[in-house]
Amino acid sequence: MMKNAGNDPLFTLTTGPVDAYPAVLRALSMPVWYDYDPAFLACFERVSRKAAAAMRTESIPLILQGEPVLALEAAAASLIARHDVVLNLVSGVYGAGFGDWAGRYCATVRELAVAYNEALDPAVVDRELRRHPEIGIVCLCHHDTPSGTLNPVDEIGCVVKRHGRLFLVDAVSSFGGMAVTPDSCRADIFITGPNKCLGCPPSLSLVAVSEGGWRKIKANPDAPRASVLSLLDWERAWLADEPFPYTPSVAEINGLEAALDGYLGEGPEQVWARHDLTARAFRAGLRAMGLSLWAARESIASPTATAIRVPEGVDEAQWRALAREHYGVMFSSGRGETLGKVMRVGHMGPTARPLYAVVALTALGGALNRLRAGRVDVGTGVNAAMAVIG
Amino acid sequence: MMKNAGNDPLFTLTTGPVDAYPAVLRALSMPVWYDYDPAFLACFERVSRKAAAAMRTESIPLILQGEPVLALEAAAASLIARHDVVLNLVSGVYGAGFGDWAGRYCATVRELAVAYNEALDPAVVDRELRRHPEIGIVCLCHHDTPSGTLNPVDEIGCVVKRHGRLFLVDAVSSFGGMAVTPDSCRADIFITGPNKCLGCPPSLSLVAVSEGGWRKIKANPDAPRASVLSLLDWERAWLADEPFPYTPSVAEINGLEAALDGYLGEGPEQVWARHDLTARAFRAGLRAMGLSLWAARESIASPTATAIRVPEGVDEAQWRALAREHYGVMFSSGRGETLGKVMRVGHMGPTARPLYAVVALTALGGALNRLRAGRVDVGTGVNAAMAVIG
Amino acid sequence: MMKNAGNDPLFTLTTGPVDAYPAVLRALSMPVWYDYDPAFLACFERVSRKAAAAMRTESIPLILQGEPVLALEAAAASLIARHDVVLNLVSGVYGAGFGDWAGRYCATVRELAVAYNEALDPAVVDRELRRHPEIGIVCLCHHDTPSGTLNPVDEIGCVVKRHGRLFLVDAVSSFGGMAVTPDSCRADIFITGPNKCLGCPPSLSLVAVSEGGWRKIKANPDAPRASVLSLLDWERAWLADEPFPYTPSVAEINGLEAALDGYLGEGPEQVWARHDLTARAFRAGLRAMGLSLWAARESIASPTATAIRVPEGVDEAQWRALAREHYGVMFSSGRGETLGKVMRVGHMGPTARPLYAVVALTALGGALNRLRAGRVDVGTGVNAAMAVIG
Amino acid sequence: MMKNAGNDPLFTLTTGPVDAYPAVLRALSMPVWYDYDPAFLACFERVSRKAAAAMRTESIPLILQGEPVLALEAAAASLIARHDVVLNLVSGVYGAGFGDWAGRYCATVRELAVAYNEALDPAVVDRELRRHPEIGIVCLCHHDTPSGTLNPVDEIGCVVKRHGRLFLVDAVSSFGGMAVTPDSCRADIFITGPNKCLGCPPSLSLVAVSEGGWRKIKANPDAPRASVLSLLDWERAWLADEPFPYTPSVAEINGLEAALDGYLGEGPEQVWARHDLTARAFRAGLRAMGLSLWAARESIASPTATAIRVPEGVDEAQWRALAREHYGVMFSSGRGETLGKVMRVGHMGPTARPLYAVVALTALGGALNRLRAGRVDVGTGVNAAMAVIG
Repeated sequence: MMKNAGNDPLFTLTTGPVDAYPAVLRALSMPVWYDYDPAFLACFERVSRKAAAAMRTESIPLILQGEPVLALEAAAASLIARHDVVLNLVSGVYGAGFGDWAGRYCATVRELAVAYNEALDPAVVDRELRRHPEIGIVCLCHHDTPSGTLNPVDEIGCVVKRHGRLFLVDAVSSFGGMAVTPDSCRADIFITGPNKCLGCPPSLSLVAVSEGGWRKIKANPDAPRASVLSLLDWERAWLADEPFPYTPSVAEINGLEAALDGYLGEGPEQVWARHDLTARAFRAGLRAMGLSLWAARESIASPTATAIRVPEGVDEAQWRALAREHYGVMFSSGRGETLGKVMRVGHMGPTARPLYAVVALTALGGALNRLRAGRVDVGTGVNAAMAVIG
Repeated sequence: MMKNAGNDPLFTLTTGPVDAYPAVLRALSMPVWYDYDPAFLACFERVSRKAAAAMRTESIPLILQGEPVLALEAAAASLIARHDVVLNLVSGVYGAGFGDWAGRYCATVRELAVAYNEALDPAVVDRELRRHPEIGIVCLCHHDTPSGTLNPVDEIGCVVKRHGRLFLVDAVSSFGGMAVTPDSCRADIFITGPNKCLGCPPSLSLVAVSEGGWRKIKANPDAPRASVLSLLDWERAWLADEPFPYTPSVAEINGLEAALDGYLGEGPEQVWARHDLTARAFRAGLRAMGLSLWAARESIASPTATAIRVPEGVDEAQWRALAREHYGVMFSSGRGETLGKVMRVGHMGPTARPLYAVVALTALGGALNRLRAGRVDVGTGVNAAMAVIG
Repeated sequence: MMKNAGNDPLFTLTTGPVDAYPAVLRALSMPVWYDYDPAFLACFERVSRKAAAAMRTESIPLILQGEPVLALEAAAASLIARHDVVLNLVSGVYGAGFGDWAGRYCATVRELAVAYNEALDPAVVDRELRRHPEIGIVCLCHHDTPSGTLNPVDEIGCVVKRHGRLFLVDAVSSFGGMAVTPDSCRADIFITGPNKCLGCPPSLSLVAVSEGGWRKIKANPDAPRASVLSLLDWERAWLADEPFPYTPSVAEINGLEAALDGYLGEGPEQVWARHDLTARAFRAGLRAMGLSLWAARESIASPTATAIRVPEGVDEAQWRALAREHYGVMFSSGRGETLGKVMRVGHMGPTARPLYAVVALTALGGALNRLRAGRVDVGTGVNAAMAVIG
Repeated sequence: MMKNAGNDPLFTLTTGPVDAYPAVLRALSMPVWYDYDPAFLACFERVSRKAAAAMRTESIPLILQGEPVLALEAAAASLIARHDVVLNLVSGVYGAGFGDWAGRYCATVRELAVAYNEALDPAVVDRELRRHPEIGIVCLCHHDTPSGTLNPVDEIGCVVKRHGRLFLVDAVSSFGGMAVTPDSCRADIFITGPNKCLGCPPSLSLVAVSEGGWRKIKANPDAPRASVLSLLDWERAWLADEPFPYTPSVAEINGLEAALDGYLGEGPEQVWARHDLTARAFRAGLRAMGLSLWAARESIASPTATAIRVPEGVDEAQWRALAREHYGVMFSSGRGETLGKVMRVGHMGPTARPLYAVVALTALGGALNRLRAGRVDVGTGVNAAMAVIG
C-alpha cells in the first residue's frame, strides 16, 4: 500500500476554502489592470451588477476587499451604535462569535441560544422581541458552519420585520448553495463570500444592504469612515465614475466575474439542486455506514456542509490526517466547541457534485477503518449514496 | 435525481487524452517565445535532456511536433527500406495497424499474431526469427491500448537482439506508467507520447533511437528528408545551436518540461507504483462486481488502462454515454475489433491515484444499473478496491 | 548600463512564433478533455465553424494538427498527382521551397521566378498559362515572409481561374493581418496558420479546400490516406459525429477558439487596420533613420512583417543578438537567400499595435548604434513613426 | 489614424496596481487549497520565510490579507496608544493621510511637514525630537507616491533611534525597487505591499515588526485583538503549526511566492538597478522634451515612480485619457493636493525595464501633441532616454 503521491491534496472536500472552478482559476491569471483604468472601472461596475443579479436583489451589493470575516466585523462596526440593544441569535460557534463583535459597539447584547446541534425557533424569537421592544437589531448566522446546521432564516426574517427591527444575516456558507437571498429573508445586511458556494478563492466578501440598513448606518455617528471597516466608504464605489476607497483586489474581481458568470449561466436552481443532492447522498451513506450527523435531525442539516459526529473513542485529528495522508482527501475539523467532536465535509461550488459524496464516504470510511479496524462498511455507505444519486 | 450540471466532464478517466497535471496546464500558458530566441533554444535542449533522464537513456530522444501517430508513421517511413523484411508482432488493434504503415515501405511484412486478449510469447518470436533469417526488423506494440494488454517487451527485446535484428517498440501508453525504457527493452526505436502517463495534452511525441537505429535510417535511401515524416531532420535539433527543421510547438514544449519535472521530482518508481495500485484496486473492484477483464488473465493486464469485457446484452455506447451524462465521468470505448466489446478505463498520469479507481467503479456500476437494473453491487466493488488500496 | 534582467525576452517582435494573446494563453490552460468527450466533439465542430467565419468561406476549413509546414507538405502530397504539370510562382525563399515539395509528387514543375525583393506580375502569369496549357496547378506564396513582400494574390487568382487551373495559396503569414481570404483569391487550397496573425502558439494549421480542390484530391490515386500527410482523412472530421483520424491537439484547439473569438469580436477590418498602421509607422521610422526596406518598393511591403536591408558592413546576427541581449527585444533573421541580408520585424496579432513600431525602432536603432556608433538617429525614426500613428 | 483596438490597455505604466509578472499570474491559477491543508500550512511558513529573506530581516514579516491600506490602518491601531505623542513627518499626500489614522488613536499628533515636492531633512527631525521628548513614535512615508519623491529614510531612522523613539515606515511603493529594508532604516514597523515593485496584484501586505515594536504593541491596551485591524493576531500565524486568525488569501499567497522567487532569483541589486535605470532614462527623456519633474530636484525623485508637473494650460485628465485611448497606455493621476498638477508614470516590477521608459515618453509626448499640437519633440525625448540606457 502506498500513500498519496506527493504532498498535494487530491480532493479538497472542506467547508472552505474550497477548490475554485477552473474558469475562476483562469480568470485569476488575467493581466492585472490599474484600478482606474476605464476598462477596470467598467469591469467593477459590471461585476457588481452581476452580483446583484446572483443575489436577486435590486440594491447593488458591496464587494469588500477581504474574506467574510472582514465583512462581518465591518457590518457590526457600521450598523451597531453604542446605545443599540442587539439580539444575537446563537445556534453555533459562528453565531456566538458574532456576539463578541456586536458587544464591542454597544452596551447590551442579548443572546438567545440553542444547543449547537439545534436550530432557532421563530416562535421563540417572536416572543423575545415582544418582550424586549428595546431590541433594535437582530443578528443571525444562517448556516453555522462548525455545526453544519441551518436556521429558518426566512421565517425568522418575517418575525423580525413584523416587529420592525433591523436584521443582520451571515449567509457566508449558505448563499449560492441553496435558496436564500437578501430579499427572501428580508435582511438589512446580508453578508456572504465568493469563497464558499461560488467557488472562488478566499479574499472578497459580498454585502447587500437594504435602504433601512443604509439609513441606520448613516445615522450611526460611530460607523467607521476612511477605514477598512467602513461599509459607507464603499456605498457608491461600484459606479464606474466613482472612486474606490482603496485599491480593490483586481485579480480576485476577475475571478469573481467568472464565478458569477458560471452561477448565472448554469442557473441558480440547478446549482442548488446539485448541492442538495450531493449532501443528501452523503448523509444517506453516512447513516448506512453507522455514522451519525452532528445535527439533531436531518431537516436542519445544511446542503453545503455536513458535520459528522465523531464516534466515541476516535481522535478526530488523527482520523482527518489519515484521510489526507493516505487518500489525499482533505476534510475540515470542527471549530471551538465542536472541535474534536465533529468532522466536516463540504459540498460547495465545484465539489457539490454527487460523485464527491462517494469520494468523501470512501476516504472517511477507509481512514476510520485504518484507525479502528473493521468499524465501517464503506461499500454499504456507497450503495446508500448511490440509491439517492440514482 | 439530476444530471451532471453543465456539459463539462467532471472526471476524465479515459485512456487518453487524459486530463493534464495542473502544473502542466499552467506551463502551457507561459508567454510564447520565438523558437530561435536564445532562451527557447536553451529550453528545448534542456527539455530534451530531461526527456533523456526520464527515459533513462544516454541518447537524447527526439521531440516530434505531433502526437504519437506522427511518430509511428515517421518511424516506419524512416527505418523501413523497400527491400526489408519486417516481422510485425500483433496482439491487438494498434499492433495490427502498424503493419499497414510498415507495408507501405517494404514488400514483405510477416505478421505473428495472437488473439487480441492475449500476449505474445518470446519463445514463439524466437522460433520465428530462427526460421526467417531474412527478417531485419521486428515491431511490437508494448501496451495495445484497445485491449488493455501488455506484451513482455523486455523479454522479446532480448530475443530480437540475440538474433541481431532491429527492434521498433510502440510504448506510447506504457512509458511513464510502468518500468519500461528504451534500454530495458533494447529498442532501436522507442516511441512514446507525453499525452498518456506523463499527463500532457496530445500534440508531441518522444522518440529514442539507438545507434544501430540511426545507422539503419541513414543507410535507407527512402528515409524521408525535409518532411514532417523525417526522423533524420530532427537528429541534432535538440542542440541549442542547431536549427529546427520547422517550428516546434512552443507552448507544448513548456508543458512537457513541467511534466518531466513532475515525473522526475516525484520519482519514476513512485509514479509507477501508483499506476499499479490504482489498476489493481480497479480490477479487484471489477471482479467483485461480477464484471470481467478483456485480458485473458490478470498477469497481462496493463497498469495504465483496464479494458472491461462488455457484459452480454449491454450496449457499450449507451453504457458509456450514461456514465458521462449521469455522473460526469468519461471513459473510452474500444477500437476496431474491440469496439463494442470493451469499455476502457485509464489510470494514467494525474488519474493514476487509488481513489479514481473508486470513482470509476461507482460510475461504471451506477450506469450499468441504470441500464439494466440491479445487475451489479457497487458497494461490493468499492470494498474490494479498498481492500487493495488499504 | 545594464542588460535586460534575466534571460527572458521582454518583447517578441518576430515574424513567428509571436507571443500569443493573453486570452489564448488562458485558454491553453483549460482542463484537457478526451477527444471523444461529447463536449469536445461539439467544441471541435464549433471551432471549425468559427474558422470558416473568420476565413469568410462557406466550406469548413480543415484544422490540421501541426504547424503550417505540415499543411503545405500535406497539400502538395494530396493535390499533386504524378502526371500533373505544376507552375510554381516564386518571389522568395518560401515560394521556392514549395517547389521542392511539388517536385516530389510530379514530374514537371515549371518555376516562374522574380527577384526575391520583387513581386509577381499577373500579366506574366497570364502569358505563362497561355503558353502552357499543360499546366494544371498554380502555386503561390502570398506573403513570402523571408522577404517581407506580398504578391497580388487576388489578381493572380483571377488569372488562374480564367484559365481554369487549380490554385494553391500559402497565406500562412498574411491571413488575419490583411484583406485576404480563400474566396478573395479564388484558391482551391488556401493554407494558413493560427500562429501568425491570429496570435496562437505554433502547432495547428487551417486549410480551406474548394469543391474543385476536393474533386482533384479525390481523383488523385497518390493522395495520402491514413497518414499525417492526408487532407482527405480530415475532410469530415469537423463534424461532431464523425471520428478523428488521430487525436487532435486538444489544448491548442481551445487556444484557437479564443483567438477566433478575439478576431471576430474585434472585427477583421479593425484587426487589419492595426496591422497596416503598425507596419506603415515602422517603415516611416526606418526610412527616417536612414535604413531601407528589402522590398523593391513600399507598395509590395507586407503589413505583417517588415524585412530591413542590413546596412553595408553590419553583421546581422550580431545586430540582432545585441537587440535581444541589451534591450530584451527579439527580432527574426532572414532565411536562406535572405539570411544575413535582412533583419525582420513582425507586426502580427498581439504585436500589431502602433506602439510596438516605436519599440522596434528603438531597439533596432539602439543596437545598431552600439555596433557602429552614431549611425542612426533613433529619435528621428520615432518622430516619423509618430507622424504616421498620429 | 485609429484607436487602440478593443478596450484593453496595452501597457499599464501606472504607480500601482501594476501588471503582474507572468510567473505570478500563473501561480494565481494554482489549485486552491484548504488553509489548514498541511501542504498549505507549510507553504505559508515557507512564503513568510522567503519574505523575510527578501526583506533581509531576521524577524518573520506578517503577511496581512489586504492591500497596504489595511496594513497602515492596522499598524496605527496596533502601535499607537491613547496617551502617545506621535510625530508625523509629511512630505506628501500619503504622509499627511497617515496623520488622520494616527489621530484616531492618540490625543496628540505633531506634524512636521515640507512642501509636497520636497523631502524631509534629518537635521530638522533631530531638532524636533530634541525639543519634544514627549514624542514616542515617529511616522514616515518613505516614498510619497503622489509626489514621486523619496525621503532619506535611513538617515531619519538613525536620528529616531538615536533619540530612542519608535519608528513606523510606510515603504509600500519603495521596497523591492531600491535599497531599503526594515533594518537599513531601523524601522519598528515597516509596511510594504507585493502589489508594487514585487509585481503582484493588490490584496496583500507585508509588515515587519521589530522586537521593540512588538513590546509596544503588546503593552498597548487598545491594540486591536480579534479584528482585521490586529497585528497581534498574526504574530505567530506564519508558523505551520499555529492557526490563522482568519482565512488567508490562498491564491494571492501562491502569487506572492512566485514573486519572491523571482525577486530573490534575479537578485535584489539587479532588480533595483533596472528600476533606477528605467527611471533615469525616463527623467532624461522628460527633460529633453521640455517637461519637468514635480520633485524639487532630481536627487529626491523616486526610481519607482516619476511625477511629471503638468504643463500650464493642460488638463491632466484629458491628457491621460488620450494616452490611454489613443495609444493604449495607462498612466496614474495625482492624488489629493497633487491631483491635476502631476501625471505619474510607474517603473515598478515588470515595467521597470528601460524600454518602457521609451514607451512612456512616446505615449506621453504623443498625447500632449494631440492635445496641444507641436508642443514636444518626442524623438528628442527618446534620444535622451537612449543616451542613458546605452
